[in-house]
Amino acid sequence: MTEEEFLAKYDSSIYEKPSVAVDVALFTIRDGQLQILLIRRSDHPHLGKLSLPGVFVGMEETLDAAAARALQQKTGLEDIFLEQLYTWGEVQRDPRMRIISVSYFALVDNNRIALTEDGAQFYPVDEILEMAEELAFDHHRIITCGRERIRTKVNWSDIAFALMPEEFTLPQLQTVYEILLGQKLYKANFRKKLQEKIVETDKMTSGDAHRPSRIYRKKTQTV
Amino acid sequence: MTEEEFLAKYDSSIYEKPSVAVDVALFTIRDGQLQILLIRRSDHPHLGKLSLPGVFVGMEETLDAAAARALQQKTGLEDIFLEQLYTWGEVQRDPRMRIISVSYFALVDNNRIALTEDGAQFYPVDEILEMAEELAFDHHRIITCGRERIRTKVNWSDIAFALMPEEFTLPQLQTVYEILLGQKLYKANFRKKLQEKIVETDKMTSGDAHRPSRIYRKKTQTV
Repeated sequence: MTEEEFLAKYDSSIYEKPSVAVDVALFTIRDGQLQILLIRRSDHPHLGKLSLPGVFVGMEETLDAAAARALQQKTGLEDIFLEQLYTWGEVQRDPRMRIISVSYFALVDNNRIALTEDGAQFYPVDEILEMAEELAFDHHRIITCGRERIRTKVNWSDIAFALMPEEFTLPQLQTVYEILLGQKLYKANFRKKLQEKIVETDKMTSGDAHRPSRIYRKKTQTV
Repeated sequence: MTEEEFLAKYDSSIYEKPSVAVDVALFTIRDGQLQILLIRRSDHPHLGKLSLPGVFVGMEETLDAAAARALQQKTGLEDIFLEQLYTWGEVQRDPRMRIISVSYFALVDNNRIALTEDGAQFYPVDEILEMAEELAFDHHRIITCGRERIRTKVNWSDIAFALMPEEFTLPQLQTVYEILLGQKLYKANFRKKLQEKIVETDKMTSGDAHRPSRIYRKKTQTV
């Protein structure tokens, strides 16, 4: 039997299959805190609880595309930083049926956000994780995992820039690193370490009570 | 309508669903190289090509349990280091049907391996990745991803010990680190860095042509 003959006879319906969803943990920095987008559920199950934006994966859709669609539907945002986080497969994680969830985390500059969906709102991550009974399904674990991944990656990657506008001052960038890491950083060390990732513009801040600060941009990758 | 009423009426069969599999990349150190377990396929599709051990996820089985089952079936190994790697969802990645694969990587001491399945064999990772046409499905990408994850994690975790026997000498441990990182390490730096992770035994090696070496064990976590 050739592979063509094998495939022509193959019956994919003989086994029961799980459903597959994606859930997206969208983080931003707002009011000096790491915050996350959650939606108050208006349907059963877990009616009234807060959940991550999610969709079922279409049969002709990649996982990345499904994650982008979930975000686009709930926030209108496109072209934002999106990375796979972890896949959750506890048998009873959803009361409707067996649903395996591929989770993603996303990062966005607070200034880009204009929420479109009713009931979608940002919540401080540390506070919401203290209120486990407010969260639907296993989303407490997904959010915890996302916060952990960000903290781990911030030191050896450029993910912090996904939370920044295109132009920023060094104090603004340092504040974002400090919020993500949960600790104060020494200015001199921070600038030395970040130096290779950024480039000066010829612009300075103006119009506020502080001394003007130099404005920087992220260095474009030239790899 | 209460949640109970909603769930009683819920019809999970209205949407078409993908299949979900797990694929496991089992690595060991053998003959001074990082090697990976592959199975010569005896069925369509991709008949005759090399593939990772994998199984379809059972409806009442967690992803971790499915990964452990895949390994147990193909190698007889139980209780080995197993960690989720990445989930692969390209629409056409399998010619039979839409199959989403949750990949895992596993690490084992070479001395524990006694393969049970015909056609299962270890291959040097760097060599097999040079022969992309030998590998079934998208397993080239999964193996590449696994090798990358090991290299990233070896410096900030204890995963190297999952490749070691319970008792080892410092030169043996250093060799494993060097193979994983793909570079030679300075003995003094290495010992200083690893010191907090290991404990001396009162035993020494004997019976070979070298000077006796102190035998060590991994320090038991006391967290």
